[in-house]
Amino acid sequence: MSGPILFINPNSSQSVTDGIARALVPLRIVDGPAFEAVCIAHGPPTIASAEDAARAAVNVADMVRARPDCSAYVIACFSDPGLEVARSLTSRPVLGLQEAGILAALGRADLFGIVALGPASVARHRLRIRQMGVLGRMVDELPLDSASAEDVGHSDAIFEQTVHLGRRLKDRGAGALVLGCAGFAPRRAALEARLGMAVIDPVQAAGAMAIGAVLR
Amino acid sequence: MSGPILFINPNSSQSVTDGIARALVPLRIVDGPAFEAVCIAHGPPTIASAEDAARAAVNVADMVRARPDCSAYVIACFSDPGLEVARSLTSRPVLGLQEAGILAALGRADLFGIVALGPASVARHRLRIRQMGVLGRMVDELPLDSASAEDVGHSDAIFEQTVHLGRRLKDRGAGALVLGCAGFAPRRAALEARLGMAVIDPVQAAGAMAIGAVLR
Amino acid sequence: MSGPILFINPNSSQSVTDGIARALVPLRIVDGPAFEAVCIAHGPPTIASAEDAARAAVNVADMVRARPDCSAYVIACFSDPGLEVARSLTSRPVLGLQEAGILAALGRADLFGIVALGPASVARHRLRIRQMGVLGRMVDELPLDSASAEDVGHSDAIFEQTVHLGRRLKDRGAGALVLGCAGFAPRRAALEARLGMAVIDPVQAAGAMAIGAVLR
Amino acid sequence: MSGPILFINPNSSQSVTDGIARALVPLRIVDGPAFEAVCIAHGPPTIASAEDAARAAVNVADMVRARPDCSAYVIACFSDPGLEVARSLTSRPVLGLQEAGILAALGRADLFGIVALGPASVARHRLRIRQMGVLGRMVDELPLDSASAEDVGHSDAIFEQTVHLGRRLKDRGAGALVLGCAGFAPRRAALEARLGMAVIDPVQAAGAMAIGAVLR
Amino acid sequence: MSGPILFINPNSSQSVTDGIARALVPLRIVDGPAFEAVCIAHGPPTIASAEDAARAAVNVADMVRARPDCSAYVIACFSDPGLEVARSLTSRPVLGLQEAGILAALGRADLFGIVALGPASVARHRLRIRQMGVLGRMVDELPLDSASAEDVGHSDAIFEQTVHLGRRLKDRGAGALVLGCAGFAPRRAALEARLGMAVIDPVQAAGAMAIGAVLR
Amino acid sequence: MSGPILFINPNSSQSVTDGIARALVPLRIVDGPAFEAVCIAHGPPTIASAEDAARAAVNVADMVRARPDCSAYVIACFSDPGLEVARSLTSRPVLGLQEAGILAALGRADLFGIVALGPASVARHRLRIRQMGVLGRMVDELPLDSASAEDVGHSDAIFEQTVHLGRRLKDRGAGALVLGCAGFAPRRAALEARLGMAVIDPVQAAGAMAIGAVLR
Repeated sequence: MSGPILFINPNSSQSVTDGIARALVPLRIVDGPAFEAVCIAHGPPTIASAEDAARAAVNVADMVRARPDCSAYVIACFSDPGLEVARSLTSRPVLGLQEAGILAALGRADLFGIVALGPASVARHRLRIRQMGVLGRMVDELPLDSASAEDVGHSDAIFEQTVHLGRRLKDRGAGALVLGCAGFAPRRAALEARLGMAVIDPVQAAGAMAIGAVLR
Repeated sequence: MSGPILFINPNSSQSVTDGIARALVPLRIVDGPAFEAVCIAHGPPTIASAEDAARAAVNVADMVRARPDCSAYVIACFSDPGLEVARSLTSRPVLGLQEAGILAALGRADLFGIVALGPASVARHRLRIRQMGVLGRMVDELPLDSASAEDVGHSDAIFEQTVHLGRRLKDRGAGALVLGCAGFAPRRAALEARLGMAVIDPVQAAGAMAIGAVLR
Repeated sequence: MSGPILFINPNSSQSVTDGIARALVPLRIVDGPAFEAVCIAHGPPTIASAEDAARAAVNVADMVRARPDCSAYVIACFSDPGLEVARSLTSRPVLGLQEAGILAALGRADLFGIVALGPASVARHRLRIRQMGVLGRMVDELPLDSASAEDVGHSDAIFEQTVHLGRRLKDRGAGALVLGCAGFAPRRAALEARLGMAVIDPVQAAGAMAIGAVLR
Repeated sequence: MSGPILFINPNSSQSVTDGIARALVPLRIVDGPAFEAVCIAHGPPTIASAEDAARAAVNVADMVRARPDCSAYVIACFSDPGLEVARSLTSRPVLGLQEAGILAALGRADLFGIVALGPASVARHRLRIRQMGVLGRMVDELPLDSASAEDVGHSDAIFEQTVHLGRRLKDRGAGALVLGCAGFAPRRAALEARLGMAVIDPVQAAGAMAIGAVLR
Repeated sequence: MSGPILFINPNSSQSVTDGIARALVPLRIVDGPAFEAVCIAHGPPTIASAEDAARAAVNVADMVRARPDCSAYVIACFSDPGLEVARSLTSRPVLGLQEAGILAALGRADLFGIVALGPASVARHRLRIRQMGVLGRMVDELPLDSASAEDVGHSDAIFEQTVHLGRRLKDRGAGALVLGCAGFAPRRAALEARLGMAVIDPVQAAGAMAIGAVLR
Repeated sequence: MSGPILFINPNSSQSVTDGIARALVPLRIVDGPAFEAVCIAHGPPTIASAEDAARAAVNVADMVRARPDCSAYVIACFSDPGLEVARSLTSRPVLGLQEAGILAALGRADLFGIVALGPASVARHRLRIRQMGVLGRMVDELPLDSASAEDVGHSDAIFEQTVHLGRRLKDRGAGALVLGCAGFAPRRAALEARLGMAVIDPVQAAGAMAIGAVLR
């Protein structure tokens, strides 16, 4: 299985897609499959609403069909749109950013928390996390004041707000913090140092799990 | 953090330890940390009983103390002996084989099953899986007729029995199969091909998660 | 709120849609809102796969937007495609067939079972039922040999197979049986009489709950 | 099955019973069964304590035996006294106010809250809700300052206090509010308008579910 | 608190009541409170149905009121009728046979099973066990062919059938067996010896917990 | 089975061990087995860390092996170190302090709380309580400011702090308070009187359950 591991960013933002590709560079395996990150040109600029997620699921399905050459697929949006349908279309591994981020956190500490991009996604994520059956290990999901995926890896204000939310979650028992969006990778290590707890970038978590899934 | 990712095999078997090292070769990261696998010379030849696991926990703790140079630790025994104590002794990532194997399975399918080395460990594993809070996603754990970790990667009889147990779990809804022991890696891909479902080698799953955990 | 209660059948089958309308006739409220059943002309003939469900979610969303005159919406497909997105698009009640059928069963007995149209949908339904948090009250979901929604209300063979599956579920403790598809209404009462347990037609269950939801 | 749907109010209050009957008027089905509301003349004036509920269970059982002519029974008290025993005495549908109110809420939103008549009933209700297996979807149950069922549909002070408690529950994530008592129906729509969330009157919710249960 | 620990047998059987008293003899504490066992003369000869249990709850409440001299109360019927109401009537400890039997089992093994007196009580018990929140640790409850509480401590046929059911539960993972009725005490030790697993007589389990609850 | 019930205190404190023995005096059974309390001379002075608990598990195992004369074993440390391994080494009853304390609380009220000796143990206890499957019935575990087991039965300051924490737990719904350490027995009754709720000393709870477990 020599095809790339395809990260499908279901929004149309090239800069977010480029950020995903950069976040995966340190995960390059000797003689292993390459990572490739694509966006959906006709997708919305961001996946902010339930409707965005519903439409993204269809676009993700179309992309999986269009790229039978890949060794694995990662849905690079924290709502994991189209995860079920993508898995029904291929026998190859299909991972979701939210699932991978949370699973990585579960492997690091008993309780985790999530920092969400904004208030609107918290309830939508909870549905998925209960579906995963791991809501009992989540302290809480706390939202930023509606940040954008393009900014989270660069803005100092978002960094400080993330530290603030992370501390609240840590005080309530969280031992690992999941960053609820693609784009945070450039700041992950700095957040971990400031917070003194495991901090999970879901893109890198998904990349690592994808490597494990395509091993032969 | 340039130290190796240390796989601590708490039994004394050099051949199992060598197998662990070999299973990790395909996971070598360009410019990333090396993997190192060690065993506990004075440990028991295998971790078969609750008492073996209790003693292993102490040996694992001693090893973590003795190796402050590592960037991450993996407890390379499917009972995850000493996971809690090791995490209390270092701020670096500490992963367990059982946790990593199960978490990898949760990222591949809704329901998973486990094939155990033998009947004695099933009840012990269930305690841990309920502690993880994910028992509701396990179809069942079915035991081999007391195989040994040294044989599971090589014996054709064990291979066929694993296929048989895997099929029973798949018939009951499992979409991913966790191999409940170090040593299965040489047969993982063949099992996956025969069963038509995701098959997880916990050593490689833990290796991949460890890579994700030490990224900077 | 004098608009109709709109049943949105996301497949293109007019005969199934007509059956839905007929099933709702006995629920006509004096001076209450009317029921209206529509299908999605460009939808698939049946919602059989995860991809069908993903595409149906988008079609359901479009229909909700196109019909702001309604007092309530019911997604008339047992996979409840688009339930989340529809709720995000209107403040009026939005019900799903699966949810309503299961909730009606929960109000009749401690444990319920489901008869599914075919094997393919069982795993998809389980994701939703765990998301609802009520998997612990389901005995099992057993599939028919891939029946069609157009036949379930009429075929004697399907009737007998449903009796057979219902008995197996009753023997395992189920006190209520949910028929996992629109179309069963003409046979519901006969099934209840044969099985000696509560039998829930999800269309009628959703119709009754919708009436309760639009009361003033 | 042409007998009435019998609402059994296990307390002796005629005015509460009359209120129940009035709340059901908008649910009259064309050619369907009538609703009838009765109280237990020798019951306590209100069901406030565990002992009241225990005695009510026996009275409810006696009433079910005394009225074999009914097509369905609803226990019109939010503690659902006698629900199990009533179900054991008849093969016809038996619904409880608490169950029906909560199930209706589960069909409207992911999380619900309850406003209780007073502090004493919160712990008793929790036992039942855990028994139903849906405690994980309840945000909280908050009590009024010991209001009476006779007042809740009329008092402006209780209305304002209910708005206050409903807002607290909404702020904590509740998408539906269950009114924890018979008698609220005259204010339900006004509460819904003020709170901007689904508000469930359990009498009407039970009435609607009962209609669904007696359809032929 | 020098009053007796009162075992309230809610049925009218004097021989069952005498058996309860005998089962408690080995639990006599030096200088501790005495045990006293009473029955309800006007109660039913056995608590077999949901209606029996509902009426028993009221009788238990009356008895608790009538005996304010006791240091603790045990409801000596495996359905725990009136447990909630009795607790609301006194600040002294009130235990139930089912709760005590199950809690004792949970202190002995990870998984337990129950042998019920007959098929009719299994569903009723499940409601209580889910209410306790420990259904996840029960393998199953298997019924005898409708034995009577008066016979279970003496009949060889019931003994052999209990061994048979206990073996089935042990094979499925149970490490402790709860005898689902008062009266089994004379055979408890023999059952334990035959089955090779912990066997819990709920009367003695409740007696031991009651001693712990009244210590000063 | 005439051997003593052995309480194994895995730390080296003779004064704590003596306190355990004193706490059990009121539980002396007429003609029943004696209680004996031993400490591990080479154990740590207190079991404060995960490493202490891991080492204690091995010491407990050694002690169980060394004392085959006992009729039952109680691990007299609130972390229950070595519970699994001890059970694997003997067919006689093995109880843990934490399990027994919590199970006693579950037999007294719907919700319980714990007062811990200090902040460090709260997270470790939570793992065990989730493993038991009863986390849903715990309100919270609140820590003292790092008290010692030698002081908790005597210090007035600790008494007042325990009252304070107990009140907070009671206000949040707890009906029983578990004292999270050996040594509290001299103050248990006074705490119960001050708090007006059931207060469980885990040593006495375990002693009472052990008596029930060794009955013949």
